[in-house]
Amino acid sequence: MAFKVIKENILKENSETAGKIREKMNAGGTFMINIISSPGAGKTSLLESIGPKLREMGIAFVILTGDCFTSRDAERMDALSLPVAQINTGNACHIDAQLVGKALEGEDIQALDLVIVENVGNLVCPAEFDIGEDEKIALLSTPEGHDKPEKYPLLISESSVAVINKIDLLDRLDFDIEYCERSVKKVNPGIKIMRVSCRTGEGVNDLVEWIMHKIKIKKEKNV
Amino acid sequence: MAFKVIKENILKENSETAGKIREKMNAGGTFMINIISSPGAGKTSLLESIGPKLREMGIAFVILTGDCFTSRDAERMDALSLPVAQINTGNACHIDAQLVGKALEGEDIQALDLVIVENVGNLVCPAEFDIGEDEKIALLSTPEGHDKPEKYPLLISESSVAVINKIDLLDRLDFDIEYCERSVKKVNPGIKIMRVSCRTGEGVNDLVEWIMHKIKIKKEKNV
Repeated sequence: MAFKVIKENILKENSETAGKIREKMNAGGTFMINIISSPGAGKTSLLESIGPKLREMGIAFVILTGDCFTSRDAERMDALSLPVAQINTGNACHIDAQLVGKALEGEDIQALDLVIVENVGNLVCPAEFDIGEDEKIALLSTPEGHDKPEKYPLLISESSVAVINKIDLLDRLDFDIEYCERSVKKVNPGIKIMRVSCRTGEGVNDLVEWIMHKIKIKKEKNV
Repeated sequence: MAFKVIKENILKENSETAGKIREKMNAGGTFMINIISSPGAGKTSLLESIGPKLREMGIAFVILTGDCFTSRDAERMDALSLPVAQINTGNACHIDAQLVGKALEGEDIQALDLVIVENVGNLVCPAEFDIGEDEKIALLSTPEGHDKPEKYPLLISESSVAVINKIDLLDRLDFDIEYCERSVKKVNPGIKIMRVSCRTGEGVNDLVEWIMHKIKIKKEKNV
């Protein structure tokens, strides 16, 4: 099928660009994460929660927020004075390495501890496109239902952390959190699972600690 | 940019196939809808609600459920003895006309009043791919947040109905339903908006009535 070949070529070209970004990040000792979720699962809310905490801890970081057209998410970061760059993908349903490369052009990577990419809301294609990150974070949310890890296994298998957000709604939903967690572990036994509510703040520190730990390891490797 | 040209060619080829499907549907007097939403907004739940009602009213229909890999949604339809065919897209984030054409090969279109396509959970690409449907239905859900119509304007502008699902959760969310509805109308003044809870059944009949009305019109045109 022609489409398959075209896609393979696109992914190959993307990987090469991602490799160059990874080299730069490694040279700078800069840790990079790629957050992927459905639309409305809470990527921006999560960044609103962890951003100020990371800043308080003295972490130098930049957030790249991906969206098809608007800059609404970037504005939400800006409202908290968090350093942000907008990536608009137009009609593309994912961020590719080329877009990340362009967004980072003005940044002094050496001076950064951390780059956070908020991908376009989509569970399919963002999992396929390497953008040079160290780790992917899959953000699930309880109202979406507990069947998502089985439906989108590539994202789960590619991710180091699965954050289950909106646990404050559990009492009002048919969401079976044990089932969801078992499904996540079945696809990726080594993955870390965190139960979070960006609304109440519950569990958010677990992610902050994980990021801090990863930044430390990356810096040590670089010394 | 090469990718843009490739995409234009893919969309052109897709449109031609969609045109052929549309001709068949028109010849059969068969009404076809394409339901698009985020993962977990409630497409399958909506079909679980409206399917038995349409059957009771004597409507002959088939549901085509799209998913990347699993057949979980089709199994849910099957559990209610609703006529269903599974479309697996592999790593593709949308259903294209070719996949719909294949799924319909075994069907006697002339004998059907209605074809319902449940697209892959994604707000971006499914809105771009014509699959031969008469009307698109955009399914939003309250936990996703009220900013989605502004973020995904193509879907809204392409759709005839915007269903806002999970209104039973409104008391627990910061979802501004008036803001959401205004945004929908700003993008597409002619769109119909329905407030629904698949959980409580509220508002579901509005959609059933709309579909019944559209089937009637299509049949009349065909006489």
